[in-house]
Amino acid sequence: MNERKGHQSISFGEEVYIISGASVVGKKEGEGPLGPCFDEVEKDPLAGAKTWEQAESTLQHRAAVRAIEKAGIKNTDLRMIFAGDLLAQCTASAYNLAQLDVPVYGLFGACSTMGEALSLAAMAVAGGFGEYVMALTSSHFASAEKEFRFPLAYGSQRPLSASWTVTGSGACVLAGEKSGARITGITTGKIVDFGLKDSLNMGACMAPAACDTICTNLQDFSRQPEDYDKIITGDLGSVGQQILFDLLEKQGYDIQRQHLDCGMLIFDDAVQDTHAGGSGCGCSAAVFTAYVLPKIVSGEWKRVLFLPTGALMSKVSFAEGQTVPGIAQAVVVEHVPQEN
Amino acid sequence: MNERKGHQSISFGEEVYIISGASVVGKKEGEGPLGPCFDEVEKDPLAGAKTWEQAESTLQHRAAVRAIEKAGIKNTDLRMIFAGDLLAQCTASAYNLAQLDVPVYGLFGACSTMGEALSLAAMAVAGGFGEYVMALTSSHFASAEKEFRFPLAYGSQRPLSASWTVTGSGACVLAGEKSGARITGITTGKIVDFGLKDSLNMGACMAPAACDTICTNLQDFSRQPEDYDKIITGDLGSVGQQILFDLLEKQGYDIQRQHLDCGMLIFDDAVQDTHAGGSGCGCSAAVFTAYVLPKIVSGEWKRVLFLPTGALMSKVSFAEGQTVPGIAQAVVVEHVPQEN
Repeated sequence: MNERKGHQSISFGEEVYIISGASVVGKKEGEGPLGPCFDEVEKDPLAGAKTWEQAESTLQHRAAVRAIEKAGIKNTDLRMIFAGDLLAQCTASAYNLAQLDVPVYGLFGACSTMGEALSLAAMAVAGGFGEYVMALTSSHFASAEKEFRFPLAYGSQRPLSASWTVTGSGACVLAGEKSGARITGITTGKIVDFGLKDSLNMGACMAPAACDTICTNLQDFSRQPEDYDKIITGDLGSVGQQILFDLLEKQGYDIQRQHLDCGMLIFDDAVQDTHAGGSGCGCSAAVFTAYVLPKIVSGEWKRVLFLPTGALMSKVSFAEGQTVPGIAQAVVVEHVPQEN
Repeated sequence: MNERKGHQSISFGEEVYIISGASVVGKKEGEGPLGPCFDEVEKDPLAGAKTWEQAESTLQHRAAVRAIEKAGIKNTDLRMIFAGDLLAQCTASAYNLAQLDVPVYGLFGACSTMGEALSLAAMAVAGGFGEYVMALTSSHFASAEKEFRFPLAYGSQRPLSASWTVTGSGACVLAGEKSGARITGITTGKIVDFGLKDSLNMGACMAPAACDTICTNLQDFSRQPEDYDKIITGDLGSVGQQILFDLLEKQGYDIQRQHLDCGMLIFDDAVQDTHAGGSGCGCSAAVFTAYVLPKIVSGEWKRVLFLPTGALMSKVSFAEGQTVPGIAQAVVVEHVPQEN
């Protein structure tokens, strides 16, 4: 039974399940702490393609195909795919989706896109609009540096607040068929602009939005942080995490025991020199499918609040001195006990 | 009663209504054949802002505020906005939405985005996920030229197949409350790639996708072209229109009596030197809200198939020699007779 909660949340009851998840990442991600968890580690940064953008499309394609296979369906069984990436005009997704021959809705939510895709896919399944629906996102370190920052060959210095864009993709198939993990609710994020302008400190730009979405979720569902085994942000990194804790403390919430951040999980900064942590549409998608989802399915975590976070900016908005607003899209995912 | 039709369509029954539509356009659009139809014509190309991107955000903001006012609601009554634009990382939408204080899902479907936004907003209302939901898109001639083509000061020659990006924005509020126009169905588009690479002939790139979505819609709903008073594409322009007719003829359909194209409606090429027609996310949104929707509400048109079309490309994909795939997202909008 679908029910609107508060002003920004929806409760889905027992209607939406994640029946498969798949992840494909790059070499550096494969060398990180979660290396063994990913379905595939591609060691060639170009993934056999000619450009960084095509490489990203290739990884996204492989993640989608693997999630379809794991779900035991065919691509033509998918009623729709919600997909997005970080590139201008979301071309990484477009060239992958052109091959998949599936109806498509393209999304842009910066690094929050996997939260947005899961939210809309859940609505589509819960509303009876699709039997099988996919949520799919990707990012690539080199295509993102080219899109937002400097040519790699410059060897630019990176401040310690900077994150390292994850090369990778994650895909989930959602359906009404019972599985070990169900999406029981969502909280739609608002864009929150604290006036920050430092695109090399995206954690600080996104933390206010994460705080806003977490507080709203807790209020809309009448929950406390302890009602979640984990509250998992997308890519705040170590700098953004501390700001989130400080902001939430002012709202009367302490989530330090529950909080994990996909960007902090995927790399080991001490060894991999990734500074504040991983980021990108592919970061939260790959960590969710490879690490979070299996723990929910196994029952190690019973209820998780997963909220990918996005910093909304472009190289033009940066050059024009605009602020970097943030957004966080939240999904509640719960363990479903196996019936014997 | 919501019902899935075929593999790509959904029938909504009598649950989703468009309760308001608003449009704000630029000077050139105001001088075109539809000039008197728009809610507001802004004569300053910068709309009082400092950059083209901010000007676009400003127009989008005004369209959103007008649609909210026309619906007789407050911005905080909106459960969610589906919004997008053509700029890299959809910044025109981000900076507008940051001011509106409403939950947001960001979209990218190139010039098909208004079709996508209306489709997802209709699903949200039909699924009971939102009382009031907005669909909102924008484009701006100068921000689009900067994003995709050449600096305006170059005075580049434009081939006759080129379109002229519309400066404007359109917004609709959807709800379950009865109004003069209801969305009775949607057909989700697939990405169709015919291998064309000419970004100055987007009509040709998008026509195959329009053909695909129209055929699928007719088949999924067991209809003939005559079952629609009008079949209205987004921005194929005069070149794309002829290709669409040819492609449909091969499928056994003749839509020449029903077909209109928003890009061909908004400008008068003979007077305005706009070549193939208007284009951009704002083109189909402004023409739909200013011209199409009133004719449906009045009953002049009883049933319309509205399908904005998008050419999926970026300046990077163009520079790398990639193709320009197309997509078309269709919405069926029907007249609702007034009860006395």
